[in-house]
Amino acid sequence: MTTAHGDVPTPAFMPVGTQGAVKGVVHRDLEQIGADILLSNTYHLYLRPGDGLIARRGGLHAFIGWSRPILTDSGGYQVFSLAARRTIDEEGARFRSHLDGSAHLLTPERAVDIQAQLGSDIAMVLDECLAHPSEETVVRQSMERTLRWARRARERFLTLYEKRGRESFGDGVIVTNPGQAQFGIVQGGVSPELREESARGTVEVGFEAYAIGGLSVGEPTDVMYSMVERTTPCLPEESPRYLMGAGTPQDLVEAVARGVDLFDCVLPTRNARNGQLFTGEGPINIKNARYAEDDRPPDPACVCYTCRTCSRAYLRHLFQAGEINASTLNTLHNLHFYLDTLRRIRDAIAFGRFESFRLDFHNSLSRRLHDS
Amino acid sequence: MTTAHGDVPTPAFMPVGTQGAVKGVVHRDLEQIGADILLSNTYHLYLRPGDGLIARRGGLHAFIGWSRPILTDSGGYQVFSLAARRTIDEEGARFRSHLDGSAHLLTPERAVDIQAQLGSDIAMVLDECLAHPSEETVVRQSMERTLRWARRARERFLTLYEKRGRESFGDGVIVTNPGQAQFGIVQGGVSPELREESARGTVEVGFEAYAIGGLSVGEPTDVMYSMVERTTPCLPEESPRYLMGAGTPQDLVEAVARGVDLFDCVLPTRNARNGQLFTGEGPINIKNARYAEDDRPPDPACVCYTCRTCSRAYLRHLFQAGEINASTLNTLHNLHFYLDTLRRIRDAIAFGRFESFRLDFHNSLSRRLHDS
Repeated sequence: MTTAHGDVPTPAFMPVGTQGAVKGVVHRDLEQIGADILLSNTYHLYLRPGDGLIARRGGLHAFIGWSRPILTDSGGYQVFSLAARRTIDEEGARFRSHLDGSAHLLTPERAVDIQAQLGSDIAMVLDECLAHPSEETVVRQSMERTLRWARRARERFLTLYEKRGRESFGDGVIVTNPGQAQFGIVQGGVSPELREESARGTVEVGFEAYAIGGLSVGEPTDVMYSMVERTTPCLPEESPRYLMGAGTPQDLVEAVARGVDLFDCVLPTRNARNGQLFTGEGPINIKNARYAEDDRPPDPACVCYTCRTCSRAYLRHLFQAGEINASTLNTLHNLHFYLDTLRRIRDAIAFGRFESFRLDFHNSLSRRLHDS
Repeated sequence: MTTAHGDVPTPAFMPVGTQGAVKGVVHRDLEQIGADILLSNTYHLYLRPGDGLIARRGGLHAFIGWSRPILTDSGGYQVFSLAARRTIDEEGARFRSHLDGSAHLLTPERAVDIQAQLGSDIAMVLDECLAHPSEETVVRQSMERTLRWARRARERFLTLYEKRGRESFGDGVIVTNPGQAQFGIVQGGVSPELREESARGTVEVGFEAYAIGGLSVGEPTDVMYSMVERTTPCLPEESPRYLMGAGTPQDLVEAVARGVDLFDCVLPTRNARNGQLFTGEGPINIKNARYAEDDRPPDPACVCYTCRTCSRAYLRHLFQAGEINASTLNTLHNLHFYLDTLRRIRDAIAFGRFESFRLDFHNSLSRRLHDS
């Protein structure tokens, strides 16, 4: 995948840097473990420190000091998660800030403008995110609204970027990255027909690439896999496909098998902070008393800094003691595990042995650590 | 200074790793910024995860994965800080754990045993720490008790280490570092006479080296300097002198001028977590709104990772957003500032220009950043 800040080998995983930082891990460590692209959250950056402030600094790359590609979401997912604090209508989403209760309106056009100011390499359109399960008529209406929003977002994007090269536009929007791309998002709940219809409609609007949204929200795993399988054939082969918000290591392998190229997920980072460490033989919970005197590294097969220098006993101690370094060391390991899994997938594909990799991967994960 | 885990160029500053970790900074980053020796707190490690558990892992170096020298305090300072939760008598200090309220007795002998199990390179004797100000008769009694405790601690230490090479001793104490050294501590409040008496008495007991305790506890700066000045001439020239718990960058320079070789202090680490960054022209508080759009590094003269890659605007954002990385980046910078100050002091001494360095250092620090 080619972006304004360099190429990204795919399939790829994007660590989540919600507020312009991956919690607990500084940029040089992310680069060292092979993070080729970061995801950052428009909702959070819009509210604090504000997309205007970031634009005046020259955009998100300059502001946070990260020179590799960045993808920003539209802010929609966080707004929809606000539940009681937001209302949705055709115009967009009205919401109150979780920080100070201030009122805001996020429209498809505003989501484009904000991301133009942030200057991410990939901007996402505003889509409507439904809870699972939702009734099919509701899902259809929502999917159709998402399509109408997609047209508005694309129109705004094209207007904005036709004027690229000029610093300022319209309502004072500063385009900080003239090479920004825009991805459309397929919705349609767990209905194969609606998914296909959404995919065809979104492709018709025409974006640099396409994402699959509204999955990994509580539906059974096999339903998610089946939705992915129905959607990817409706998306152009030549542009990357991004499965939003997924998932477990198994999910990533299965989604790649179904044609997905790009992932983001808070699992490796959030679970690290809660003491869960991913290993090739399944996750372990470092809080567990059984690790108090366990001198082995978290994952004996892993070569990350944490596994090379820390025992389970030490990591458990740091976690129990509430040390910041527990978050740092656990997150470093989990992100390394995810990024390394993607590296292994890419190698397997390159050498034409993805199917045997897939089998080995699942077999290993389902084998619990017998002696732990 | 020579230790069982290598040499330490002096004067030296020891970052504080209370629970076996410097809050927010992993070991490899500490090594990279030139931390030659760490301090860790016996009180905390004794309570959690326990010196027995650490001894069974092979000692603190093995447990935390740090191969350079470590100094441990005696646990006394923390116990005395427990105020209502502790009582002191000739035998030692009875206290209740801040974690679970359990009852413990810390005697001079126990403090030796615990540190023998931790296997630090330098163990400190248990001393009585008084609040400032205290009445002279109280200070005298306390100083004399500290001397009696010093004799008991030294006796225990010699007994323990005469048996070095054997894994276990007496009540099951495991000596994990046969090359451990023991430092005595000079007390005496703010009385020059008591300080001299304490120094002579402690040297008479005989330790590998000596520390100055009970300063930097609220007395005026000039009183602290004057106490240091009266004490160091009473300590042997050939062994390092350690000023415990000090201080500001200015304090370090002034103490070196008065013959001190070793320092520890929580200022650079604790203040970093509260948003205070040290610079050659005085500290700045990154929380301040004036830094919201300031694209300069924290200290334009600094070459640390934080200053090379982060603006004040970004660091302020991370702090305001409550990101862990604010602690990490601020701590990295502040420790770099302290360690670099000590490096500059050593260079100045080596080139016979310490006095001009001292003058420049104070002049620069008292010059506020005119444009910030």
